[in-house]
Amino acid sequence: MRGVYFNGTGAEFRDDLQKPVPSATESLIRILYAGVCNTDREVLKGYRPSFRGVMGHEFVGVVEESSDLSWVGKTVVGELNAGCGHCIYCRTGREKHCLTRRVIGMEKKDGCFAEYMTLETHLLHEVPSTLAPEAALLTEPLAAALQVTKQVHIQPDLPIAVIGDGRLAYQVASVLRLTGANLTVIGKHPEKLAQFESFGRTMTIEQAENLADQALESGEGSYEIVVEACGAPSGLELAAKIVRKQGTIVLKSTYAGKTNVDMSFYAVNEITIKGSRCGPFDPALRLLEQGLVKLPPVEFYELEDYEKAFGSRAFKAGFRIGK
Amino acid sequence: MRGVYFNGTGAEFRDDLQKPVPSATESLIRILYAGVCNTDREVLKGYRPSFRGVMGHEFVGVVEESSDLSWVGKTVVGELNAGCGHCIYCRTGREKHCLTRRVIGMEKKDGCFAEYMTLETHLLHEVPSTLAPEAALLTEPLAAALQVTKQVHIQPDLPIAVIGDGRLAYQVASVLRLTGANLTVIGKHPEKLAQFESFGRTMTIEQAENLADQALESGEGSYEIVVEACGAPSGLELAAKIVRKQGTIVLKSTYAGKTNVDMSFYAVNEITIKGSRCGPFDPALRLLEQGLVKLPPVEFYELEDYEKAFGSRAFKAGFRIGK
Repeated sequence: MRGVYFNGTGAEFRDDLQKPVPSATESLIRILYAGVCNTDREVLKGYRPSFRGVMGHEFVGVVEESSDLSWVGKTVVGELNAGCGHCIYCRTGREKHCLTRRVIGMEKKDGCFAEYMTLETHLLHEVPSTLAPEAALLTEPLAAALQVTKQVHIQPDLPIAVIGDGRLAYQVASVLRLTGANLTVIGKHPEKLAQFESFGRTMTIEQAENLADQALESGEGSYEIVVEACGAPSGLELAAKIVRKQGTIVLKSTYAGKTNVDMSFYAVNEITIKGSRCGPFDPALRLLEQGLVKLPPVEFYELEDYEKAFGSRAFKAGFRIGK
Repeated sequence: MRGVYFNGTGAEFRDDLQKPVPSATESLIRILYAGVCNTDREVLKGYRPSFRGVMGHEFVGVVEESSDLSWVGKTVVGELNAGCGHCIYCRTGREKHCLTRRVIGMEKKDGCFAEYMTLETHLLHEVPSTLAPEAALLTEPLAAALQVTKQVHIQPDLPIAVIGDGRLAYQVASVLRLTGANLTVIGKHPEKLAQFESFGRTMTIEQAENLADQALESGEGSYEIVVEACGAPSGLELAAKIVRKQGTIVLKSTYAGKTNVDMSFYAVNEITIKGSRCGPFDPALRLLEQGLVKLPPVEFYELEDYEKAFGSRAFKAGFRIGK
C-alpha cells in the first residue's frame, strides 16, 4: 500500500506499507481524499514525539469492510479520537478527551495519508449522496468551528469578533455569520482579510487596537464574544482589550510555551475564557450539504508529492488518493 | 461626624467629617455596623491611588432620609457600585461594571466607616426584621460567593473543589454545599481547614497535589468545577491540575502582577475559566434569614481602633458604629 509515513524525524513516501486489517469493532476505509492540517505540520516538528506511522486525520473514503455491514459501500468521514470506552471521559460523552485515546495519524493509530485506513465504526459519519466527496473533506475543520456554537450561545443580536485571517478563522467566521450576529473579523494581512469581506466587517489589527482604546474608555467598540483563532499569544492580548466585561473569549489557538497573563483582569471583569477544539461532525455535514458555508478552494497533490502538499501556501492543501 | 478616612497615604480617624447630604436619587443611612474586607487593606496599599475619603463598603444601617420615602426607617444593606446609568454596561444589567462608576469607600464616593453614608436608593436592600443586623453584615461577602452559583450551573451530582481556606473560600464553600454537590476544600493551613470539615472533604495542598498526578493519569480525583479562592497565582496552577477536561475553573482570586500561563493547555483541554466578583444581594439575605449558611464570627472594634481592626487576624473584623 502507498502512503506518507512519519518515521520519527520526518515524513517519507512508502509503497511497501501493509494494508491494515480492521478489528472486530472497526471498519476498513478506502481513502478518496485526505486534507493536510497544520497539526500534521506540527507532527513533523515533533508535536507527538512517540508517534510512528501513517500521517493524516482529515479524510473522505468508502467503507470496504465493517463490523457493521450496513456501512459497507458508504462514503464516509470520521472522527479522530478513539477512546478506551471505560474511563471517566468515555463514560461522560467526552471520548475525544480520553487520557489513553488513540488519534489517527498522531497517536497509536495509523492515519489517512494512504490508500487504506481502519477506524472504530462508531466514529464514522455518512456523507450524503448529494455532497461531493471533495467538499466533505472539509467536515473535520468545519466541525471544529461548530464547536464554538456548541459551547457558547451565540445570540443573534450580539457584537462578535473573530481574531485571525487564516483557515481556522475562515471556518469560524463562516459558521458565526449564520447566526445573524454582528460579526467583525480582525486580521494581520489585508490581502487575506479580503476573503472575509462577505462575512461582515473586517479590520486590521492596527485598526482594532485603536478601537480597543475607545472600548476601554467608553465601552463602545467592544464585543460580547471574541473568538481567538490567530494562532499566536498576541491574539489573547487583543481579545482582552476588545471583549466586554462579563463577555466571553473563545480560545481556538494553540501555540507552544507559556504566556504572561494578568489573571486578575479576568476575575475582576468577570470574563469567561473558553478553550475550544474538535467539534460535532453531523451539523458540519448538514451545513455542507445545504451549501450554507463558503468553502475555501483545496489544492490537491499526489501522495508522492507530500513535500509540496506540506509546503503549500494554499488556504487548504490535500491529497487525491483513490477513486 | 466620626469616621475612618483615607488620606492618600494611610488611614486616619477623624471626628470633624461633614455629615453627608443625599442627592435627589440617594438615601442617607445611619451606619450600625461595618465590615472590614481585604479590599480595604488593598486600598491602604494604594489599590485605588486617586481615592480620598471615608473607607469601607460592607455595612448595615438605618435609612434616615430618602429619595423614596418608603425606605425611611428601614434597616438596609447596599451594593457598592453606582453606575452612570447610560453606558453599554448600565443599559445591559451590568451597572457594577460601568466604566465611570462610583464605588463606596474606593472610587469617587465616601464609604461606610463613619456614622453616616449616602447611597443611590436603587442600590438598597431591606434587611428582614427576623435577621440580626450583625448577621446581615455578611450579605456582601455572601453575595460574592453566590455569584459562583449565578454564573455556573452547579449540578448536584458533580465533584467540585474549592481552593483556599480563608474567608472568601469559607463563604463559597458554605454556599456550594447547599447544592448537594460532592465538595472538597483544599487549603494550606490544617488548622484553618478544620473549620471547613462540616462542609465536605478537606485536604491540604500537598494531598491535593498527590491526587492531581493521579487525575492527570487516570482522570480519577479530578473535579468538574474548581473554585479558585486562595488569593495567590499558585491556586490557578493547582486548579489546572485537578480540573477535568471540559471542566470549569471559577476565578475568585485577585492578585497583583502577571502570571506565566500555558494558554494552549486550556484550549486543547477545552477548559472554561470564569472570572467572578460581586454577586446578588437578595439571595444572600434569604440564605442568611433562613439560617442556611454558617456565619464566621465577627470581631467588632470602635472606629478609633481602626488600626486594630485592619490588623486583625480574625476570620472577620468589623466596626460597631451606631445603635
